[in-house]
Amino acid sequence: MQNFKLKILIFLTFYKTGGVFLKELMSRFWAGEHRALARVISTVENELPGKDDILKEIYTKTGGAYILGVTGSPGAGKSSLVDTLVKEIRKNNEIVGIVAVDPTSPFSGGAILGDRIRMNEHALDEGVFIRSMGTRGSLGGLAKTTKEVVKVMDAFGMNWVIIETVGVGQAELDIMYIADTTVVVLTPGAGDSIQTMKAGIMEIADVFAINKCDLPGADRVEMEVEMMLNFRDDHIKWRPPVVKTSTFNTTKGIAELLEAVKKHRNHLSEKGIFLKRRQERASNEVLDIINYQWERLVKHHLGRPGQVSELLEKVTSREIDPYTASQSIIEWIIGDSGSQKSSSQ
Amino acid sequence: MQNFKLKILIFLTFYKTGGVFLKELMSRFWAGEHRALARVISTVENELPGKDDILKEIYTKTGGAYILGVTGSPGAGKSSLVDTLVKEIRKNNEIVGIVAVDPTSPFSGGAILGDRIRMNEHALDEGVFIRSMGTRGSLGGLAKTTKEVVKVMDAFGMNWVIIETVGVGQAELDIMYIADTTVVVLTPGAGDSIQTMKAGIMEIADVFAINKCDLPGADRVEMEVEMMLNFRDDHIKWRPPVVKTSTFNTTKGIAELLEAVKKHRNHLSEKGIFLKRRQERASNEVLDIINYQWERLVKHHLGRPGQVSELLEKVTSREIDPYTASQSIIEWIIGDSGSQKSSSQ
Repeated sequence: MQNFKLKILIFLTFYKTGGVFLKELMSRFWAGEHRALARVISTVENELPGKDDILKEIYTKTGGAYILGVTGSPGAGKSSLVDTLVKEIRKNNEIVGIVAVDPTSPFSGGAILGDRIRMNEHALDEGVFIRSMGTRGSLGGLAKTTKEVVKVMDAFGMNWVIIETVGVGQAELDIMYIADTTVVVLTPGAGDSIQTMKAGIMEIADVFAINKCDLPGADRVEMEVEMMLNFRDDHIKWRPPVVKTSTFNTTKGIAELLEAVKKHRNHLSEKGIFLKRRQERASNEVLDIINYQWERLVKHHLGRPGQVSELLEKVTSREIDPYTASQSIIEWIIGDSGSQKSSSQ
Repeated sequence: MQNFKLKILIFLTFYKTGGVFLKELMSRFWAGEHRALARVISTVENELPGKDDILKEIYTKTGGAYILGVTGSPGAGKSSLVDTLVKEIRKNNEIVGIVAVDPTSPFSGGAILGDRIRMNEHALDEGVFIRSMGTRGSLGGLAKTTKEVVKVMDAFGMNWVIIETVGVGQAELDIMYIADTTVVVLTPGAGDSIQTMKAGIMEIADVFAINKCDLPGADRVEMEVEMMLNFRDDHIKWRPPVVKTSTFNTTKGIAELLEAVKKHRNHLSEKGIFLKRRQERASNEVLDIINYQWERLVKHHLGRPGQVSELLEKVTSREIDPYTASQSIIEWIIGDSGSQKSSSQ
């Protein structure tokens, strides 16, 4: 009873404030307010009430942004490279969202600090929005939340969404499932020889940036990458361009890097790969939601007393096998939901 | 058409040979033939045709065996300890199956060799059956296949099934989801201090065996374990006994180890934990099968041209959101299967 009262209270509170709040928030979001965008992202990222409604509302407005992934070892200068690349993109007046994923920070503390420092760079530019995300220790959760935040920025009207992430951990390779083009940033120096790079990171590159190209050894890294590409089977389809960049004293290679990304973008469009990928991603997304809904339906049935729990008892006591039991339960769930559907029509 | 002919051919071949073969195999299995048991295990382990029928047929005969897990670091002397324990169990004429899981061997080569050496020990004893399994590099697959092989031995009529595994890798901790009682084997020596044991392995122990107890340092290990147990919250429910064992020159502590296992077994029965666990495992098993069947049903629908693929097109082109699409697809699948069911009745 206590619990029921609590639920009613939460419902009423949300109905009175949350629902109206959400409606107002979204109208400010659609009007292009940066503060509303920040609020919507927080709601999605922190799984606050209204998240599902937001994701449902924004979906049909997504698909306009080009998703660029930038990854590489810690200290490769990814942030500076992204900032300089954004300035280059801004010359065409296209607006840009940056999602900086920091898998090393267990809490958002460090990430927020990073935000503030970087915000100064683009502080006066209304066409750039930066958001840092800590993964809060859950590497598995990275892909899903990042994907959702990218969608929010996409729906907001960004022409580009850049996901910047440190190339460590298997989950980091998931960037290739979100990004349309992935840039892998390498640097000269003993520790960053391609022989020592982690497995998989080289394979996800659509474009290589050899950053800090003023340092000695840049030519050797370039040669190593080109050699590796020579040995690859699939370079007939798309051979990743290798661009030498610098953001240190003089800015170098940034226009060329953007050019390489756009070249890959054209390649994807021309070969129909872009559309095919979008189709696959849409199917996978629908499939994930279907399975999630189904699990909820099953749990609802398994929890109820009656036929299903009697059947489970019989499986426990070895009277029937779980295969036969599963078949019956599926038929009951489907029959039940099917008849509910018919009677509600 | 080619494909269809092939399917018919496979079906007829299996129907003519496989089906009859399976029936004969299972009748020999139920008659208690060791060679038939070996064949059934191979069929299950290697996912050969007939596996599903076998698992379905044996299920109602399972539940009689007590499942004992034995785990510990490599070199802790688990195999010798298990062999000596089995001799102790055999004094009561109870029959024993041993599943030796070797996660370090990517292929079964090493495991088979291990089989042959150990078989000599129990070669003349019809009441012991040993089977080694390599995990073939897939740690994730360990739990499922091991569980299935244990079930086969259980249905065969074993009083005890002992799972012997090296305590490395997260998947190894899964032994606690299969075993009724888990014995963790420790040894004296610098490398095996409990401070250096991997996380989680201490928590899964229902009984501790300090093996090679003739070696110096055995008392220190025992003290460390007892101290750790003193700090635990839940030792009121069950405080794992610590038994010192040796199988080297003179056999020590084996009867005491079996006694400790039986004490835990009684504890599980008396507190109703045994039944509760069996219920949970049965429910989980049914749930797994239900979800697997559902995924097959969904894939079947997603693959067909028509309503569903049109809907996926609309999600790709952002005309509708994936949440609305999922809802419709679930209703179609349920409606479709529901009406098929009604019309077939």
